[in-house]
Amino acid sequence: MKQATKTAIIGSGLIGCAWAVAFARGGCTVALYDQNTAAAGQAKDTLTNLASELEEADMLNGQTAHDIVQRVGIANTLESALSGAAHVQENVPEKLDIKQQVFAQLDATAPPDAILASSTSALLPSAFTEHLTGRHRCLVAHPINPPSLIPAVEIVPAPWTEPEAVERCAALMERIGQKPIRMTREIDGFIMNRLQGALLQEAFRLVADGIASPKDVDTGLRDGLAPRWALLGPFETIDLNAPGGVRDYVARYGAMFETIAAGQRETRDWTGDTLDRIEQSCRAMLPLDRIPQAQAERDSRLVALMKHLGQRKTNT
Amino acid sequence: MKQATKTAIIGSGLIGCAWAVAFARGGCTVALYDQNTAAAGQAKDTLTNLASELEEADMLNGQTAHDIVQRVGIANTLESALSGAAHVQENVPEKLDIKQQVFAQLDATAPPDAILASSTSALLPSAFTEHLTGRHRCLVAHPINPPSLIPAVEIVPAPWTEPEAVERCAALMERIGQKPIRMTREIDGFIMNRLQGALLQEAFRLVADGIASPKDVDTGLRDGLAPRWALLGPFETIDLNAPGGVRDYVARYGAMFETIAAGQRETRDWTGDTLDRIEQSCRAMLPLDRIPQAQAERDSRLVALMKHLGQRKTNT
Repeated sequence: MKQATKTAIIGSGLIGCAWAVAFARGGCTVALYDQNTAAAGQAKDTLTNLASELEEADMLNGQTAHDIVQRVGIANTLESALSGAAHVQENVPEKLDIKQQVFAQLDATAPPDAILASSTSALLPSAFTEHLTGRHRCLVAHPINPPSLIPAVEIVPAPWTEPEAVERCAALMERIGQKPIRMTREIDGFIMNRLQGALLQEAFRLVADGIASPKDVDTGLRDGLAPRWALLGPFETIDLNAPGGVRDYVARYGAMFETIAAGQRETRDWTGDTLDRIEQSCRAMLPLDRIPQAQAERDSRLVALMKHLGQRKTNT
Repeated sequence: MKQATKTAIIGSGLIGCAWAVAFARGGCTVALYDQNTAAAGQAKDTLTNLASELEEADMLNGQTAHDIVQRVGIANTLESALSGAAHVQENVPEKLDIKQQVFAQLDATAPPDAILASSTSALLPSAFTEHLTGRHRCLVAHPINPPSLIPAVEIVPAPWTEPEAVERCAALMERIGQKPIRMTREIDGFIMNRLQGALLQEAFRLVADGIASPKDVDTGLRDGLAPRWALLGPFETIDLNAPGGVRDYVARYGAMFETIAAGQRETRDWTGDTLDRIEQSCRAMLPLDRIPQAQAERDSRLVALMKHLGQRKTNT
């Protein structure tokens, strides 16, 4: 990028700060705004922590954490944050009335050609953009947290979002090193939570039906399926699992998966006895008060894993 | 293990050879038998290749590839392979009549207390063990390939399999460093293909419904969901994704996943136009004649990834 693109980040929680790091690492100038000035005051620490962890893992494209944090300004007003912004990334709480209110403000205040993107995971873009003058440039850009580490981001248009807005948003994401997933229309759960949901429904079903323990279901994904999936998507995986590629795979195994699917139509209750057993199993492995520590360990292992996966991709 | 356990591997294809390496690395004495003597003759090369790749990655517990291959004897007769074996791992072609015939031979010839385990992925253990005198010691031990690299293995009992047989098989797997999944009863697809099948059905559905391209669905798993899943199973993952653990997660997101599931009851046709589009996408990325090379690259990246994951597990 010859000229620094200005991005505005609205909401300075963990997701907002991780987006700020991702955009700054990619060469953008970033303005971070939070209407809660106390929250905005803590943002520099969060930014520094996120960027330092990536610096230690040599995942800042040769830049230092200091370089990154320097490129992020804390804006005192929404107006100054939005001024000159080409892309606005919203990260306010997941409540419909708040999103509606914030998007109305953004649409009224941001430059008319700025993309207005929400990080929401649970709300459809149509739910909070319908009545806006600039609804054609509104969409969802939903990351897996933290976006400074995990590259996939779902670009979800409302029915009135212009294809050009999806394309501009996706192009910016590619420029900063994210991996955009271009959706043709909005749908509950987008892509990633739909894939996760399908797998979770089966995980709960296996436990509800007493087929295996929660711990053993975890083993099947973590120590069985997932390593290959961290290298290859579902289609790439099956394409390499038959000599004649995906068509050959479907010919060989399609009937088996049809039989399996016949037993997967009905969901199970996620609460009651099934949840009791899953919770017991989780708490036996990890007491509730150690969750924060386990989250920190997961995050640090995830940094190391992403570094490893990135290295391999460069080498091959 | 103070005393070397003898295991017999029946069928010397890639899966049989990978099992031989896994058992030998774990300290077992291994007898490998194939009724096709030409296949058996090639086994030493396959064993050497598998073991050497693991030696280069320092994944043989300090042993050399030579140590491993030395511990595997090619048996000239089924009788000599089975003589004194505590565990028999069958890897013959996935055809019901062949499995029935081979299991009848194994039950008639193996020591009466040997566990008879099949590597089948597609057949239920009841389908080829019902009429055997020793059906109480027959089960499926289904790996993800290659078991010398991927630790998860599903232990699947037939209705008449003694719990003690499941336990002995699982204990042996643990001793050699595999991660056994103890199933309480047989079910189509076992655990891992049921989880994979649920996810694949959604992947095909997203493409069939035109929501995203096959390539973008691949991105969502590979660059979004899977890295975390390579560290944590599905329940561990959601347990760390809410401050109050899995119960809190279900309270927060259960309704969202119910909404998603409502749109996932009907499967889509995996053939026709949907398969055409997936195949086109796969072939655009990878011509058919380059599949063997891509498989080799995947295998080498998988070795490096498993080494990385193993290191992290030891360090944390």
